[in-house]
Amino acid sequence: MAAAGFAFTVVAEGEGGARTGTIDTPHGRVATPAFMPVGTQGTVKGLTPAEVAATGSAMVLANTYHLYLRPGHDLIAAAGGIHRFAGFNCPVLTDSGGFQAMSLGELARVTEEGAAFRSHIDGSRHLLTPELAMEVQLALGSDVAVTLDQCLPYPAPRDAVQDAADRTLRWAERALVAQRAALDRAGAPARQWLFGIVQGGVSCDLRVAAARAIVGLGFDGYAVGGLLVGESKEEMYAALEATVAELPADRPRYLMGAGYPTDLVAGAARGVDLFDCVMPTRLARHGALLTSAGLVTVRNARFARDFGPPDPACDCPACRTHSRAYLRHLFHAGEVLGLRLATFHNLYYIQGLMRAIREAIAQGTLPGLYERVLAVYGQSPAKRDPGRCVELW
Amino acid sequence: MAAAGFAFTVVAEGEGGARTGTIDTPHGRVATPAFMPVGTQGTVKGLTPAEVAATGSAMVLANTYHLYLRPGHDLIAAAGGIHRFAGFNCPVLTDSGGFQAMSLGELARVTEEGAAFRSHIDGSRHLLTPELAMEVQLALGSDVAVTLDQCLPYPAPRDAVQDAADRTLRWAERALVAQRAALDRAGAPARQWLFGIVQGGVSCDLRVAAARAIVGLGFDGYAVGGLLVGESKEEMYAALEATVAELPADRPRYLMGAGYPTDLVAGAARGVDLFDCVMPTRLARHGALLTSAGLVTVRNARFARDFGPPDPACDCPACRTHSRAYLRHLFHAGEVLGLRLATFHNLYYIQGLMRAIREAIAQGTLPGLYERVLAVYGQSPAKRDPGRCVELW
Repeated sequence: MAAAGFAFTVVAEGEGGARTGTIDTPHGRVATPAFMPVGTQGTVKGLTPAEVAATGSAMVLANTYHLYLRPGHDLIAAAGGIHRFAGFNCPVLTDSGGFQAMSLGELARVTEEGAAFRSHIDGSRHLLTPELAMEVQLALGSDVAVTLDQCLPYPAPRDAVQDAADRTLRWAERALVAQRAALDRAGAPARQWLFGIVQGGVSCDLRVAAARAIVGLGFDGYAVGGLLVGESKEEMYAALEATVAELPADRPRYLMGAGYPTDLVAGAARGVDLFDCVMPTRLARHGALLTSAGLVTVRNARFARDFGPPDPACDCPACRTHSRAYLRHLFHAGEVLGLRLATFHNLYYIQGLMRAIREAIAQGTLPGLYERVLAVYGQSPAKRDPGRCVELW
Repeated sequence: MAAAGFAFTVVAEGEGGARTGTIDTPHGRVATPAFMPVGTQGTVKGLTPAEVAATGSAMVLANTYHLYLRPGHDLIAAAGGIHRFAGFNCPVLTDSGGFQAMSLGELARVTEEGAAFRSHIDGSRHLLTPELAMEVQLALGSDVAVTLDQCLPYPAPRDAVQDAADRTLRWAERALVAQRAALDRAGAPARQWLFGIVQGGVSCDLRVAAARAIVGLGFDGYAVGGLLVGESKEEMYAALEATVAELPADRPRYLMGAGYPTDLVAGAARGVDLFDCVMPTRLARHGALLTSAGLVTVRNARFARDFGPPDPACDCPACRTHSRAYLRHLFHAGEVLGLRLATFHNLYYIQGLMRAIREAIAQGTLPGLYERVLAVYGQSPAKRDPGRCVELW
């Protein structure tokens, strides 16, 4: 399972399992804990790859579901892979498409074979199997692939959670078989890490069992899926802690779908190395800025004549050059420069927070950082809306 | 009428009246002939002010009609003017709103008092008088203002054209009176140039009469309005030549609404110093690129697997980093990065052409440049669609 050019190194460990480290890939090094912006359709909406890098983002996520449907993984493979196609000069993680399939609701149906769904673009029928998810991600050429999983909405009956966790395990085995077959065909070492996903809802015993089984298969890293879908913080923390306790210390851990400031600090405090979420970029497109004083919704009337910077404590180009009044005008006038500036700012803010998290772990001051972020931001909204995962804006 | 910090200098003259020069303003110098991108609502759609400058654009146009309605000229004045509000570190020309009012069709009605219209945003009633157009532009603080004019669609009966030209003249006098009154109130020299507009349709005798009368009033520069609205190239050239022949050589000349490559060279050859048009940026938003090989509509299916640069002869960021296939994907996926990259590219192309025009005038090779551009681009589409002037995309 050794992949050429990859490594994970723990550099410093803090209290309670928090750690800083590095992930090396053929496309560069990532300091962890790291937040990956979501480049859904081969672009972090509104930004060039150079701008994404300038926000401090060292790794991006691209969506297998979206790229499979449009423009198609064969086309991206013909272009030389997702890095060349999209101009990403950094490591790229692809998801498996499982979460998007779940979010399609009535358009999707899970069987043992895979997730059958209809395209949100043209209604065409597709069957996303664990093998196809691997084939697509290999064609995309991402640095890190993940296995197809079954992610349930919250709440779900215990037997359904158990079934989904078991199916996720069987799909993980099939993904490994498919990857080995592909490598044998290629006759070359892997150029892609593969992460297994732990499901199990908010039942700690199911989480423990699922984690042990997935770890038993031996992956390059481990994703924690099925959280941040509506459960309480207490449930989320308990399930996360139960899962992380079963994961090997020398492999990266990835909490899927976490991007709210408080969740990032809380996840890092529990030993998570990687995060992704559409929240910072989606908030931006709705005119909501992550600032040192909390969320600022620049669309609001009270900012009409506020000629101060969006965040006085921020030195991003939007905050250095433009006013809240101007951003408000751009949003009300439907000008894309508004969402561009807001998107850059929000990612810049989040990456500044990730830097602060890494420093706090190294210095043993993460609890204080958590209290400060909690005081400004509170807890993340309890309920995610999975139906929005295929929305384009 | 002397405005502090302004100057127009002819540097070199070519055959047939073509000339290169400089326009100095308190916000910087512009090499002429120059093309001004249109920043309709205080932003060149999709680009930051720094990017607009990086395309080689030294001066931008902002729309009085749009900014008057939203966010309002009083708000922009409170922000310190359009330069500070929008972050434009370059000279800004504002139009008078007359052309937008005309393009509103049934929403507008012209009387001697002004252009009465209903807002395309909320249907509210407004009366744009020559005096209000001056008040708004003074509040915006543009470097160059233009008088309110009455622009007719093409074709129009001769007596209607005559009426519109006469009314434009009377409105120009009222604008001058309003400007003088404002300067007297301020007790300071003008910080804004004022251009008069010559109307007269495609009737050369009406053009000559209108030009002489407007010049008789004495403006800082002269705009040629009412062309490129559907007339033939022969009619347009004849009317332009008849007008320019009556304009003083030591004042800048501005051909309103010209932005197609062939029109830019043809206009410069006839002694025009300034141009503006939404065409390069609007084409970009529809996925049409201005390239060294002519117009390339990257949305087309034949570019789906074209991994070459949009324009192999171009060194703009879009052409250095991205492929036609990627741009096509962005447009089909509805991603704003597509229109951003295309907008930057098209302005970069046009500003490269303007540089070539200036060099060709200085070297006496403009006729050859015209033949090459004509061979690649042909003549501009004959018919503009004035109804689209208030569209946001």
